[in-house]
Amino acid sequence: MEEKHYSIGELAKLTNISVQTLRYYDQIGLFKPSYVDPKTNYRYYKDAQLYYLDIIKSLKYIGVSLEEIKAAQKFTPAELLSFLQKQESVIENQINRMYEIRQSLYKTKRQMEEQLAIDVMDTVYIKNEEALRILSIHTNELTPYHIPNTYYSSLIKTLEIENSLLSNRYGCIYPFRQYDSLDELHYSHIFTPLLTDRYITHLTSDMEVKTIRAGRYACIAFIFEQDTYLTHYQKLYHYIEEKQLNVGPVVYEIFMPLNYSPNEEDQFIVELKIKLL
Amino acid sequence: MEEKHYSIGELAKLTNISVQTLRYYDQIGLFKPSYVDPKTNYRYYKDAQLYYLDIIKSLKYIGVSLEEIKAAQKFTPAELLSFLQKQESVIENQINRMYEIRQSLYKTKRQMEEQLAIDVMDTVYIKNEEALRILSIHTNELTPYHIPNTYYSSLIKTLEIENSLLSNRYGCIYPFRQYDSLDELHYSHIFTPLLTDRYITHLTSDMEVKTIRAGRYACIAFIFEQDTYLTHYQKLYHYIEEKQLNVGPVVYEIFMPLNYSPNEEDQFIVELKIKLL
Repeated sequence: MEEKHYSIGELAKLTNISVQTLRYYDQIGLFKPSYVDPKTNYRYYKDAQLYYLDIIKSLKYIGVSLEEIKAAQKFTPAELLSFLQKQESVIENQINRMYEIRQSLYKTKRQMEEQLAIDVMDTVYIKNEEALRILSIHTNELTPYHIPNTYYSSLIKTLEIENSLLSNRYGCIYPFRQYDSLDELHYSHIFTPLLTDRYITHLTSDMEVKTIRAGRYACIAFIFEQDTYLTHYQKLYHYIEEKQLNVGPVVYEIFMPLNYSPNEEDQFIVELKIKLL
Repeated sequence: MEEKHYSIGELAKLTNISVQTLRYYDQIGLFKPSYVDPKTNYRYYKDAQLYYLDIIKSLKYIGVSLEEIKAAQKFTPAELLSFLQKQESVIENQINRMYEIRQSLYKTKRQMEEQLAIDVMDTVYIKNEEALRILSIHTNELTPYHIPNTYYSSLIKTLEIENSLLSNRYGCIYPFRQYDSLDELHYSHIFTPLLTDRYITHLTSDMEVKTIRAGRYACIAFIFEQDTYLTHYQKLYHYIEEKQLNVGPVVYEIFMPLNYSPNEEDQFIVELKIKLL
């Protein structure tokens, strides 16, 4: 039986693997030609080798890295089986990660739907809210005059360590009381909603995971401007005073972007809300 | 309110995005510095821009490409919502693909377990088999003397078009009858087991998806060698004749590798099996 040999181009065509990839496999010692012409340096592959390319392909398909495939080539069938068992849990983890992405995406969509449902601007309205899990950080120096984005960076970094989705919503918390000037208003916490139900580790000492309770809230929403902030706050405050509503001790302020381009002027909707008891 | 500016290095540190990536984002127009010093060409970013990096990060997290993110930056909130709805089905497809990988991996593992369970070499045994879905191609020129791997390439390519896992098992089918010499033995089909339950399209006219039926099989397994092939076949043949077993019309031959390295001598276990009726 005479053995057939293929040039690298023939092999590429036969196996749907590019010449570049075959050269690379040779370089890293994953799949070497059976013969290299010493004069021309042309690579030749024998028919019996094709089989091993299929093994490489199928391990790649199940997410095994080229380095791991190289190690797997030395396995006995029993070792390969135990390797496949480990690979199963790798795939299981990836599926779980996709589930989390799906869940986060769903929650993001819900947030967008809620934002689009805010059509009553500049007047007080009552709204039912689901519970909202947040990551918050204690502060005492921030006011509506100045909330540097950098302040949120520590929250964002914590979420990134957790490999969790960012919500693109930012919030602040401050005491509910009469304010005659914005200078009096100091945030006690800033926060970002969590899009995951996972337990968050890696918290710094000033951070906390809390839940803003479900229930009825008195709210007001407006396009953020420093000049009109206090007027809107006072509208909400007087509404509650007038109706003698029993409310929680703090105001939640949530920022929602109206555009997503770094090249445009940034515009945010702010929603202030306070829990009805 | 004086606006804070960050150098590219400061921004990188603040946002956990590398300087290289920030430069690349600038190049492709995804995220540009608010100011570039005309003398030094140094990039400077303002605090208010940080927010847009979070949007980029969160879209990346849900699998959106940089190109698509650039397009999404021009969206209104309503457009972003409809984009997120589409992205949900992208994620759904990815999850389905992971399910298929998991299923294929499971079937591969089962195959390996079955291979390792073959401890009776060179003697006939009876075995219960599950149904096996195969992709087969008609042939009339092949014999155990010569089965070029290239012959399987068309099967492999079909599976690759379907984006399906290769099984690393190859098989042949030939009529069950007495053979006095290997020259008489001609394969009618070669095949590869399917690891997916999906419907396979893109079949050429000589290809067929078939199922090898579940049930009891008379089998013999041995290390493939041309010189001993016929002897083993005859052992199986005589066993069936002697016991006057009622069997199917064809023999299934399955090749299973004993090593996975292209640098070693290739060694295969062959199992011949015939269905008991």
